Amino acid sequence: MVTITALDTFDVRFPTSLAHDGSDAMNPDPDYSAAYVVLRTNSPDGLAGYGLVFTIGRGNDVQTAALAALEHFVVGRTVDGIVGDLGAFARELNGDSQLRWLGPEKGVMHMAIGAVINAAWDLASRRAGKPLWRFIADMTPEQIVDQVDFRYLTDALTPAQALEILRAAEPHKRERIAQLEAEGYPAYTTSPGWLGYSDEKMQRLARQAVEDGFRTIKLKVGLRLEDDIRRCRLARETVGPDIAIAVDANQRWDVGTAIDWLRPLEDVGLAWVEEPTSPDDVLGHAAIRHAVSPTPISTGEHGQNRVIFKQLLQAGAVDLIQIDAARVGGVNENLAILLLAARFGVRVFPHAGGVGLCELVQHLAMADFVAITGRKEDRAIEFVDHLHEHFVDPVRIEHGRYRAPTAPGFSAQMHESSIRDHLFPHGIVWSALPLAAGG
Amino acid sequence: MVTITALDTFDVRFPTSLAHDGSDAMNPDPDYSAAYVVLRTNSPDGLAGYGLVFTIGRGNDVQTAALAALEHFVVGRTVDGIVGDLGAFARELNGDSQLRWLGPEKGVMHMAIGAVINAAWDLASRRAGKPLWRFIADMTPEQIVDQVDFRYLTDALTPAQALEILRAAEPHKRERIAQLEAEGYPAYTTSPGWLGYSDEKMQRLARQAVEDGFRTIKLKVGLRLEDDIRRCRLARETVGPDIAIAVDANQRWDVGTAIDWLRPLEDVGLAWVEEPTSPDDVLGHAAIRHAVSPTPISTGEHGQNRVIFKQLLQAGAVDLIQIDAARVGGVNENLAILLLAARFGVRVFPHAGGVGLCELVQHLAMADFVAITGRKEDRAIEFVDHLHEHFVDPVRIEHGRYRAPTAPGFSAQMHESSIRDHLFPHGIVWSALPLAAGG
Repeated sequence: MVTITALDTFDVRFPTSLAHDGSDAMNPDPDYSAAYVVLRTNSPDGLAGYGLVFTIGRGNDVQTAALAALEHFVVGRTVDGIVGDLGAFARELNGDSQLRWLGPEKGVMHMAIGAVINAAWDLASRRAGKPLWRFIADMTPEQIVDQVDFRYLTDALTPAQALEILRAAEPHKRERIAQLEAEGYPAYTTSPGWLGYSDEKMQRLARQAVEDGFRTIKLKVGLRLEDDIRRCRLARETVGPDIAIAVDANQRWDVGTAIDWLRPLEDVGLAWVEEPTSPDDVLGHAAIRHAVSPTPISTGEHGQNRVIFKQLLQAGAVDLIQIDAARVGGVNENLAILLLAARFGVRVFPHAGGVGLCELVQHLAMADFVAITGRKEDRAIEFVDHLHEHFVDPVRIEHGRYRAPTAPGFSAQMHESSIRDHLFPHGIVWSALPLAAGG
Repeated sequence: MVTITALDTFDVRFPTSLAHDGSDAMNPDPDYSAAYVVLRTNSPDGLAGYGLVFTIGRGNDVQTAALAALEHFVVGRTVDGIVGDLGAFARELNGDSQLRWLGPEKGVMHMAIGAVINAAWDLASRRAGKPLWRFIADMTPEQIVDQVDFRYLTDALTPAQALEILRAAEPHKRERIAQLEAEGYPAYTTSPGWLGYSDEKMQRLARQAVEDGFRTIKLKVGLRLEDDIRRCRLARETVGPDIAIAVDANQRWDVGTAIDWLRPLEDVGLAWVEEPTSPDDVLGHAAIRHAVSPTPISTGEHGQNRVIFKQLLQAGAVDLIQIDAARVGGVNENLAILLLAARFGVRVFPHAGGVGLCELVQHLAMADFVAITGRKEDRAIEFVDHLHEHFVDPVRIEHGRYRAPTAPGFSAQMHESSIRDHLFPHGIVWSALPLAAGG
């Protein structure tokens, strides 16, 4: 009987603030970090499950403590008992009444629960010998519905409605798997757009992105309007009319400010405006969208749970949504969000970058293509070429497209040496710095 | 120069699950707990500031770790530097870009920030020799406006509009202070209504509540409809037509379930229905309110921040709101919420009970009466007669009314012996239990 013998946690941080990589209007000096969790087993082959929460530095220790607080939910239990019913496992963690008080279903505790659930999915798909996207795709519609907690969703999506969506996809799965393996999944890139970059660097990277096959690029905005107008127009000149340009304000504006800021950008022909205001402000997004139409509005990378996504869709507040693999309650809650989006006919452009977010979220987008919507060419997964070398099964990008992962699991496993060297605050990378930037 | 020399934290838990005190439809076995924080100074008179986050057991260690992570914001700084501009201090903590990623402004990290901000207000009002409600009441309208972070609020409340509300109150402050000190502030009681109680115990406690002078009682509902109908009707028979009866579903229902559940309760004549569904579901509350009108709908004790309250008010989703002293970003964010409620003309019935929540929130309601709305007889502060003996300056309830606190500070300080005995897991109360219920 294979059992889970340990839940190990690691506070892993990368001193990215030294190079201004990842800088935006709200986050001037992030140290990209992962609160990393491993579910170890007594299986002779070393079977384990890996998960992480992405943070940007300070507080990664708190996030790691939240992971450690979940130890008693898993240690001593059989792998069969957990991965045999991942829906029940997710409901058990999210439903724990005492932990629920700390959210409910939001913030540090919810992200920790999501990472442990993701680690259990990693374990399950490794044991099945399949990459996670394929593990999900091979489930029946009924099995997928069983993964979803419909609490608070039934006024927008019932289990029967979800089943209908999934059953419609069922006959096409085989052909879609072949298509995905042959074509990959579109990516877009944020690499040119960080606020800390000069115009020249932005243009150079934008040209490079187009040469590399990307059809959409994204720029950070929101610090100074005149800079944004200049940068967006420069980017449009640089990439020409056929490449989509999105912008990301990272929650910088109030509703009125967003409207005033976006009107002078209308002539750039933006593909979308991401996070114009607070990620909690459903009605605010609806008001902005109405005022700046036809400029498309989006949000979601900080969407705390399925209840916020439900409302964004019900209110017609967004033209498209971002999902994030490490923000909500794991694969299960992201399946709920993907099904909601499918029900409302809204496109999903997964958020990635950070540490390991590309590795994780590609699986969800691909599972959505095969088992839910059958759509991929009208959407794209974010890509930032950053920190992938620390992962055992890094993403593979070719001609601006994500190749479908083939290794078993959820691609969250990091190299032992990367973890060891970047442990905060005593890993060699941090102890070598004169002042710990994340402290 | 008085400086802050330490931020000390304590994981304090009470084994309340042993007696089913505090049981409701979502929380069957809470162990009422406090992640407790002390800002110590080098002042010769022992000046310190006290704050806490209320939790219900598991995870209180994570919450305590989040408090500890804020040490570098305060230790080594002068007391003048912090309490001289509490608005700037609150914006600094809430605006830290790296910590913000862990919410933003919600969950474990936000509650920790709120507790440290509250401890700073405690320190400020102690130093001024005033109870917190009076410390706020004695501020000018301009000073109160400076406490508020208007980010994400200006589509509903601008600084100028807030100033207008506060200036209208200014000429009446002196008379209101006298009135408050003479009359106290109405309380309502949840003591009879816990789900774990028998009908007989509920009736006995309801009769006692009326004899004690309470004009409103609250019952927990949401586990079984037939029980709720019976208990509500029994309660109505017991207290007669002149006592208000509220019910609290503690987030138990989906939107459709709430509507179906509440219709058979309509003849009870409920004063309000609290937390019918997810605290995040603004549109859901609006749909429920519309469907069950005229039964009043409320929420707020789990309202994560001012953005959710703004939307509840904008959407006309609630008839009244609860505020909680330890859920949002401290006194500053609660001032924002009180000003929003005043602007929309919605009554506030503060959430209390738990550990120290009565002690804290009474100050906010009283400050609202004196400096903001001038209203108190059409609203009430929750009261549960529970755990007050652990506080140095416990609430005083007389004839169903809160007496205005007179001791300097925010009333959050606990007795040293209470902290020591209830430290988890090694305090004497926990080490004497055969199995640590909170573990």
